[in-house]
Amino acid sequence: MEQQLKLFYGLSVLVAALAFAFAFYLYLWVKRQKSVNKKIIEVATLIREGANTFMAREYKILAIFSLTVAAIIFILLPHPIWKGNILTNLTMAISYLCGTILSALAGKIGILVASLSNARCAEAAQDGIKPAFMIGFRGGAVMGLIVVGCSLFGVATVLWLVNDATILLGFSFGASSLALFAKAGGGIFTKTADIAADLTGKVELGIAEDDPRNPAVIADNVGDNVGDVAGMGADLFDSNVAAMASALVIAQSLAGGIFDNVSMVFCYALLGLFASIIGIATARIGKNGNPTKALNSSTYVTTIIFMALTALATYFFEGFSWRIWGASSTGLLVGIIIGLTTDYFTDDSKPIVKKVARASKSGPAFTILSGVSYGFISAIPAMIGIAVSALIAFKICEPMGPGYAIFGISMAAVGMLSIVGMIISNDAYGPIVDNARGLAEMGNLGEETIKVADELDSAGNTVKAVTKGFSIGAAGLTVISLLGAFMSEVNSALAAIGKELIKGFDIMDPTVFFGTLTGAAIPALFSAMLILGVDKNAQRMVKEIHRQFNTIKGLKEGVEGVKPEYGKCIDIATTGALRELIPAGLMTIIATVAVGLIGGPKAVGGFLLGNIVSGLLLALFMSNAGGLWDNSKKYIESGNEGGKGSDAHKAAVIGDTVGDPFKDTAGPSINTQITVVSLVASLLSTIFVTFSIFG
Amino acid sequence: MEQQLKLFYGLSVLVAALAFAFAFYLYLWVKRQKSVNKKIIEVATLIREGANTFMAREYKILAIFSLTVAAIIFILLPHPIWKGNILTNLTMAISYLCGTILSALAGKIGILVASLSNARCAEAAQDGIKPAFMIGFRGGAVMGLIVVGCSLFGVATVLWLVNDATILLGFSFGASSLALFAKAGGGIFTKTADIAADLTGKVELGIAEDDPRNPAVIADNVGDNVGDVAGMGADLFDSNVAAMASALVIAQSLAGGIFDNVSMVFCYALLGLFASIIGIATARIGKNGNPTKALNSSTYVTTIIFMALTALATYFFEGFSWRIWGASSTGLLVGIIIGLTTDYFTDDSKPIVKKVARASKSGPAFTILSGVSYGFISAIPAMIGIAVSALIAFKICEPMGPGYAIFGISMAAVGMLSIVGMIISNDAYGPIVDNARGLAEMGNLGEETIKVADELDSAGNTVKAVTKGFSIGAAGLTVISLLGAFMSEVNSALAAIGKELIKGFDIMDPTVFFGTLTGAAIPALFSAMLILGVDKNAQRMVKEIHRQFNTIKGLKEGVEGVKPEYGKCIDIATTGALRELIPAGLMTIIATVAVGLIGGPKAVGGFLLGNIVSGLLLALFMSNAGGLWDNSKKYIESGNEGGKGSDAHKAAVIGDTVGDPFKDTAGPSINTQITVVSLVASLLSTIFVTFSIFG
Repeated sequence: MEQQLKLFYGLSVLVAALAFAFAFYLYLWVKRQKSVNKKIIEVATLIREGANTFMAREYKILAIFSLTVAAIIFILLPHPIWKGNILTNLTMAISYLCGTILSALAGKIGILVASLSNARCAEAAQDGIKPAFMIGFRGGAVMGLIVVGCSLFGVATVLWLVNDATILLGFSFGASSLALFAKAGGGIFTKTADIAADLTGKVELGIAEDDPRNPAVIADNVGDNVGDVAGMGADLFDSNVAAMASALVIAQSLAGGIFDNVSMVFCYALLGLFASIIGIATARIGKNGNPTKALNSSTYVTTIIFMALTALATYFFEGFSWRIWGASSTGLLVGIIIGLTTDYFTDDSKPIVKKVARASKSGPAFTILSGVSYGFISAIPAMIGIAVSALIAFKICEPMGPGYAIFGISMAAVGMLSIVGMIISNDAYGPIVDNARGLAEMGNLGEETIKVADELDSAGNTVKAVTKGFSIGAAGLTVISLLGAFMSEVNSALAAIGKELIKGFDIMDPTVFFGTLTGAAIPALFSAMLILGVDKNAQRMVKEIHRQFNTIKGLKEGVEGVKPEYGKCIDIATTGALRELIPAGLMTIIATVAVGLIGGPKAVGGFLLGNIVSGLLLALFMSNAGGLWDNSKKYIESGNEGGKGSDAHKAAVIGDTVGDPFKDTAGPSINTQITVVSLVASLLSTIFVTFSIFG
Repeated sequence: MEQQLKLFYGLSVLVAALAFAFAFYLYLWVKRQKSVNKKIIEVATLIREGANTFMAREYKILAIFSLTVAAIIFILLPHPIWKGNILTNLTMAISYLCGTILSALAGKIGILVASLSNARCAEAAQDGIKPAFMIGFRGGAVMGLIVVGCSLFGVATVLWLVNDATILLGFSFGASSLALFAKAGGGIFTKTADIAADLTGKVELGIAEDDPRNPAVIADNVGDNVGDVAGMGADLFDSNVAAMASALVIAQSLAGGIFDNVSMVFCYALLGLFASIIGIATARIGKNGNPTKALNSSTYVTTIIFMALTALATYFFEGFSWRIWGASSTGLLVGIIIGLTTDYFTDDSKPIVKKVARASKSGPAFTILSGVSYGFISAIPAMIGIAVSALIAFKICEPMGPGYAIFGISMAAVGMLSIVGMIISNDAYGPIVDNARGLAEMGNLGEETIKVADELDSAGNTVKAVTKGFSIGAAGLTVISLLGAFMSEVNSALAAIGKELIKGFDIMDPTVFFGTLTGAAIPALFSAMLILGVDKNAQRMVKEIHRQFNTIKGLKEGVEGVKPEYGKCIDIATTGALRELIPAGLMTIIATVAVGLIGGPKAVGGFLLGNIVSGLLLALFMSNAGGLWDNSKKYIESGNEGGKGSDAHKAAVIGDTVGDPFKDTAGPSINTQITVVSLVASLLSTIFVTFSIFG
């Protein structure tokens, strides 16, 4: 059986290598495409340089942060260095650093390809939807393949070398601490620029969204890349690693069949990546095809291939259980259901978006009230979906023996995340075509081309809502299994000091209850800090834009040759984003540590539960309400309820501005926050077991 | 010891009678005050009649609802009639009906006195702050005394007669089902009228808030009474009864000292009422005194008297424990801390309101974003406060023996609610002086009088934020003890059929987890339904107002003798409120039953936890954000950040409109929703134990 496990380690590395090779091929393909328009090349270069500036600054700060954390890990984890084994602590610290490096690498490569693709996609749009779609999609696919390849490669290699899943928690924590900063920092950056550009350009001067006179326009495009490409990539890298790590920690604690269980985790993960490769390779669009359909159908193809391949594997490998297959398929199907309900609430061909657009006719207060209400309602199918899939996975796997039920839930999370390569491809497609639209406008490629780019962009928005719902759902299931992993860790810490093991976290125990209420408060505080950060930062940038318009002669009037100082705006967005995200990120970690030191492991168990519950609710609410407002505005702009310039439109623009930091900053950062907190809890379990006031 | 219990039954009824007598005295005092202005009398009569119309319609529907529920209770509870004792079921059904009748009675009397006081308060404002304040305060105090008197009288009588605390759950459910409808229905009514009046009056025509030309103006004033007086009264009647009922259910299940424990519950409750009577009787204001200070200082006086009296009681009665005194005092102090933090976030002399006002200068989106953010942050002290007080109460009482820890938490809730008589008095003061302000304007009492009324009104708003925070906090602790009561009930049901008792609700059990996520979704759905209900209903009323302005000649121009049809607007608000609240109310009950039938008692335990956690978060968020927006608008109106008519003011008005249904409809209805769900769960525990799919 150990032999079989080695087979899967090898296969995992092989499939990861295949993904890298395929990504490299797609990269070369994109690079080969036509890029001749000087104006576009110039702007695209500005965007690339802006993104590089931000990432260089961010990575520098993160390097200091990561090295500090690595030092702390080396001293304290998994056991304080004066009590434990120096070598184990060193391995943990290195494993943590590997997680951060791979995450940063994946983000970096994604940005590189995205900023190559956007210019080429804009030029290809002159020839129609088909060539432009392929560039956007394949550019995004590079990111998807790299992210999933890195996570599979990283997890397999670390476990192969150290043979202890607990060390993987360090790797996973590296991935998620970086994701927290990439997602939240990128989210603050992108919305700072977006809001400031809209407030000064569209609202004050009445110029178009991507008008090159606006000093914030490059920062806005940079934001799409650092927020949506690098941020979302880091986020899903993190979820994927966390799902695998928690499944492996639980697998390691199960009696019997350990090699089979570990093999199964890798088997599912590698088949998911393999299915994604096939899905990406076969994605096609007709000459005048619908890009939304093309993106969705490749998701469905990948899903079916994955379920078929895992069924085959279950049939062939003796130790593989059909129950696990059932649990994993449940997770995947629920992921799709969550995606579809998100779509129902945010797609402008469906009734909800239209209702909010109609409410906007009574004024902005009604845009907000109806959006908030439907945003709340939209969270419910996903929450119940996650709850039901956890319940089903548990019940399916319970008969396999003690501990298997939780393992089943973790495999549902692995199942939901299996097709993540495909999901990221679709997601990264969005900012590429969004940028391409801006470049088409700035490069004066004409109405027809902009219309093509608009259609591609609209598909990007619809698909983005679905992938966000998917990633939040996946995070939900993952953290349930992380809760399981946390209990395993607590119990091994208890066993090590000869204390009685805990059987669970009883909500009637007031330390658990104390943790639950505190944990539930964290996502609210975290979101508020990020939104206020965007707010403050946007005010700073608005000031700078006003300064430029007032002091640079001829800028407002669009005199030939007069250019704004784009770099200043990028600087403000960068500095502000990093300044605002650090307190929010540290707050979540400190709160976890404080609860653990006050209430011990039971309080932390409750803390994780409260964090998951309120985090899921707020994340779904904010992401969906934001998408809903965005699309209501677009629906009105396309001529409904009075069209552009009407009172309804003005109200909808206010709704969209409120929704921007909801959907692109706070909402999608929350799931990373949940993962970080869960991993911090697992890593520090020994410390919480040893020291705590009320525990 | 049984003798001592009878003493406390007797004393409870006696103190309740004292409260009734004092309330009657205050009623006569208010009635004796001057009321001579014909215009004011005319309008006040319209308001009283409007309120009566609404309450008559509401009570008719509620009577049908209550009789139906009573019939269901008779058939099913506490045990199905074919298995149990007909007499017990009949007692339960009657007890339920008593709860509804007392709640309705308290609301009715409150409205009666409030609508007497408003006119007299307006006229007294001509003579200065002092006489007007006393009328407003004493009018409100009648409500406070009646509500707490009824609850103490009801609980003591029922338990004295039937000697089984489980029957009290029926009484409590009666109170809370009525409160759900009174609070949510009143909340929809009041905001429908308020928003419609503002949209048509202030925004479209630019006329003053209480201009008598506006057809919705009477409905708006009626709304203040049915929402804030009757609704809040029913709400706190419910919380108070629920706190006592759950403490008594737990006391009944404790081994040993049962009479002492039951005595203690009554002793604390009756001393709280007694302290409130003293606090009300001694409330005074200087000639040019500050009404906010006067209201707050009477709260502090009541608190100190209560703590001193309970300390004395603990010293004198042998079986009374200092630990319980500690738990109860903890609850009370946390209640005050929650009130003070709410004040920090919503008072316009504190920084947060000013920050939101400043943000409004950048446009309405920033009003909303900053208000949402600070609203989230404002929830955190209260949540942690509740968590910590529960933890402390538990730890203080844990050494007393098994089960006492939860009893300690329930006594913390009783402590927090002890001074509820005082709280309701302060709360009911608000709508009275708000109405008085409107009457002063409609009766042309002159600038000076309106200024006095404005000052009284502003104190009402500040104090209202504090009392809301208090009532949400109290509901938080109450439902924790209701969770304890639920477990007691489940265990007696299990014991009755000879099954193994449950020890708690483990969050690692996926049925519990399933319940938690589902329960967390309910307050979001419930709030969304209420907000959308206000939205829809306001649209209907706006249509009617437009119709009147267009068809009634001379109305817009204010021709002498031309009057709008006030009654039509009251009709719309009434019908709409009842139509919108019923689905929301039923949904919460049906969801509880569904979760219980699917997942059994464990899922319900999780359901209650999820409901409490997300309910507290959303209730605090919405109440505080709403208060914050309201006061930011007022802060700007008093000449800051550009003053009335500026862009910042327009943005702040939008924020206020968004906040209206947050703070007066959804936010304060959520705690009633939580109580209802908790009581339904406890009442149906036998059924969930017997039938369920996964349980």
